[in-house]
Amino acid sequence: MTSRLQQLENQLTNKNPMYPSGDIGLIGLAVMGQNLILNAADHGFTVVAYNRTVSKVDHFLENEAKGKSIIGAHSIQELVDNLKRPRRIILLVKAGDAVDAFINQLLPYLEKDDIIIDGGNSHFPDSNRRYDELKAKGIHFVGSGVSGGEEGARYGPSLMPGGAEEAWPHIKDIFQSIAAKSDGEPCCDWVGPAGSGHYVKMVHNGIEYGDMQLITEAYDILKRVGGFTNKEIGDVFAKWNKGVLDSFLIDITKDILYYDDVDGTPLLEKILDSAGQKGTGKWTAINALDLGIPLSLVGEAVFARCLSSIKQERIAASKVLPGPTIPKDAIKDRQQFVDDLEQALYASKIISYAQGFMLIREAAKEYGWKLNYPSIALMWRGGCIIRSVFLGEITSAYKANPELENLLFNDFFKNAIIKAQDGWRNTIALTTKYGIPTPAFSTALAFYDGYRSEQLPANLLQAQRDYFGAHTFRVLPQFASENLPADTPIHINWTGKGGNVSASTYDA
Amino acid sequence: MTSRLQQLENQLTNKNPMYPSGDIGLIGLAVMGQNLILNAADHGFTVVAYNRTVSKVDHFLENEAKGKSIIGAHSIQELVDNLKRPRRIILLVKAGDAVDAFINQLLPYLEKDDIIIDGGNSHFPDSNRRYDELKAKGIHFVGSGVSGGEEGARYGPSLMPGGAEEAWPHIKDIFQSIAAKSDGEPCCDWVGPAGSGHYVKMVHNGIEYGDMQLITEAYDILKRVGGFTNKEIGDVFAKWNKGVLDSFLIDITKDILYYDDVDGTPLLEKILDSAGQKGTGKWTAINALDLGIPLSLVGEAVFARCLSSIKQERIAASKVLPGPTIPKDAIKDRQQFVDDLEQALYASKIISYAQGFMLIREAAKEYGWKLNYPSIALMWRGGCIIRSVFLGEITSAYKANPELENLLFNDFFKNAIIKAQDGWRNTIALTTKYGIPTPAFSTALAFYDGYRSEQLPANLLQAQRDYFGAHTFRVLPQFASENLPADTPIHINWTGKGGNVSASTYDA
Repeated sequence: MTSRLQQLENQLTNKNPMYPSGDIGLIGLAVMGQNLILNAADHGFTVVAYNRTVSKVDHFLENEAKGKSIIGAHSIQELVDNLKRPRRIILLVKAGDAVDAFINQLLPYLEKDDIIIDGGNSHFPDSNRRYDELKAKGIHFVGSGVSGGEEGARYGPSLMPGGAEEAWPHIKDIFQSIAAKSDGEPCCDWVGPAGSGHYVKMVHNGIEYGDMQLITEAYDILKRVGGFTNKEIGDVFAKWNKGVLDSFLIDITKDILYYDDVDGTPLLEKILDSAGQKGTGKWTAINALDLGIPLSLVGEAVFARCLSSIKQERIAASKVLPGPTIPKDAIKDRQQFVDDLEQALYASKIISYAQGFMLIREAAKEYGWKLNYPSIALMWRGGCIIRSVFLGEITSAYKANPELENLLFNDFFKNAIIKAQDGWRNTIALTTKYGIPTPAFSTALAFYDGYRSEQLPANLLQAQRDYFGAHTFRVLPQFASENLPADTPIHINWTGKGGNVSASTYDA
Repeated sequence: MTSRLQQLENQLTNKNPMYPSGDIGLIGLAVMGQNLILNAADHGFTVVAYNRTVSKVDHFLENEAKGKSIIGAHSIQELVDNLKRPRRIILLVKAGDAVDAFINQLLPYLEKDDIIIDGGNSHFPDSNRRYDELKAKGIHFVGSGVSGGEEGARYGPSLMPGGAEEAWPHIKDIFQSIAAKSDGEPCCDWVGPAGSGHYVKMVHNGIEYGDMQLITEAYDILKRVGGFTNKEIGDVFAKWNKGVLDSFLIDITKDILYYDDVDGTPLLEKILDSAGQKGTGKWTAINALDLGIPLSLVGEAVFARCLSSIKQERIAASKVLPGPTIPKDAIKDRQQFVDDLEQALYASKIISYAQGFMLIREAAKEYGWKLNYPSIALMWRGGCIIRSVFLGEITSAYKANPELENLLFNDFFKNAIIKAQDGWRNTIALTTKYGIPTPAFSTALAFYDGYRSEQLPANLLQAQRDYFGAHTFRVLPQFASENLPADTPIHINWTGKGGNVSASTYDA
């Protein structure tokens, strides 16, 4: 029940329906929605709050929202009636059907040029579709990535809005006000057309999966090879957080490592090692496979979560599949070991972000989006889960050259990875020897060594494909000849037994 | 133009349309189709051949098909009229719309219980759909994987039919006659319902990607670290082909390495190192991500092809991104080096197949298919691209225990991988040190070390997710307590600053 006082206050705020006072409406009062509302109210905006289960609206108004510029709405109509024109309505509801359902509920009450913003974890093809559907109805659709968890939503998230650019002037002020700031600049800018905002958020999440996997591998190595206590590992992360790895995820990892249960032992060691996922890392890896971009860190990070989840099978396997014994004195020089590991983590992270930006570039090409790369890096610089000093360097790299083909061609990152290389290789040699799984560290190095290989062994792969399936190959330009013409699919009868029908005509 | 003689012969074979003589019809006269027809004719079946471009039918009848029990059809009606009932018609056309188009062309001429077999590289969801659509029309649809390339199609492919089981008695004889044989048993058996035949073929192709990637990595190591000539590498593969790695792909790799261009130098070294793909490896990796199975070898193999295809970017990178120098005497003991590499390849291959069967098991569960695991291994044992002695061992493993949870729990494979372990680790340590990319070897080892880890560092990942997103975690059973209850999602306020709203209620 809304209190009588609150009811009167609401009526007072909204006494004349001809001049509604709401700057922005928000549907969905779960943790992210509530916190975004409080954030916007703190910045002087009047927010109209609605939730399907309306008792939540009353509870919110009587508690967290009390005394703030927040109006409760008990119906869609009340929500819309309380908003200035063009209406700006953020949906923070479960991705999927709920988004469409609320859009359909809203439509009868909206007018041309009103703005619907989906701030949930929607998959970008859905945002592409909603953008098109609402455009046809004269409504501006914005799909906005929101990152930063509950803490970010409350005090400054990273916001990645894309869709109908006509909406941007109307939401820019609110969005940039409530967003996190990095060196005074808001971690929010216009991403691009259609579903590109949610796309960039998806890649952000994929990179987040990679970052988290890299950190867990470092923790595992310190624990299992180094024999470090949680307190000692916490100290390592605390120190790393003052250097090139300075980031939110390293910072919270330190907190987690220091956190003791009521019995005084580390809580972390009591937590079940089966990782959950909400699907955005998977989406990113699938999109990379679809676009043909080797996003191997995200792929391995997702697979590592899958492997972690079959705990019972791993317990059974651990009893029958042996590995190397790790001697107590495996590590001779602890400082060198930790420094090498820091470089391994740093270099792998550089590769992961290089891959992520390769994917975004390819998506821009594939989907016909014009994207602003320095802004993307800046949006991730603060407020979101992957925020880091590192992203400041990426912002600088793309500001210096917005058409940068690959992050590894930027001097800062090139020099960083060259410097990190020895420690990176030492670390993987060590884990290989002692049987500690490092799927993300290893795939990062494999990518680096593959990327810098002028010649990869894929020539053999093409020969095999031509041998068994007449799939043809091409000749390296420097070896073109009369019997191996340049720029032409060539099929060789490798055995003299196969037919001469080319596989390139495999249709009826 | 059909020759007059051929026309008369055709008329003679089919003089009474009440008693058509065709055992099976085949649409699509590209390389696979032609070879399958010749194969079936060799086994005493009368095949009716049709192609959209009918001149191809005439050309085929005047050449390869001449004098054989092959009837040319110049229209769909002629094809159907020439077939015994129930009609059995194989489509070997480009996957996608062409399959649906031919099915629609066929339908008006077919009767209840006729059989349409799609032998192309169709994606299994399409086969699921076609199975349902045709079932509603009383037509039995079979989606059959066909592997073995042009050579296999001609002299004995691996055939993986699934779909309407009512069709199996009518096609079993033809299918098992033309299929490859392994120790006298046909490499063809009924796979299961709906699209399961194409599903198993898809996983076969994924595994093929993995096998090929592993072989190219071995070649690259022998070449770049060992400094071996192509002839020497060919000798290594020739020797491996007599041991545990005995397989079609190792065999053709040897041929390819020995193959010289007209100028007497190895042709392989002139082939462009940019790998193509037809998508089935990608489908497999995407399906694994969807089903949550860590199919990391296929994932890395697909990504390795993607990386190989950006040749120009790699050339640019090779000029600015340095790596370790490989000394001339990097290898002290060549025999040990080769033996270690053989073990690395063998162990990685075991992991890849273990992952592949994990995926198939999960698919059976997810899609409600009852599948016959020993038969699947036997179907791959001969005829197809991944045929190998190794698959005989897998067949035995699943015959001994059809409910085997994982290949690594079978004694043969467990012992093999234990024996291979040192060489495998030595090889990766070497490539890590010398900067040779081994994404597939490395991910295989990471999987092994992860799979046999009772405790993985995913506890940290869950702590992080709970810290920033209130995603909750669970406690290890042995540490359950009053404040950490067993089997319950637990949220901790890690900093004391976050709110108390649980993320598990993230809906409106």
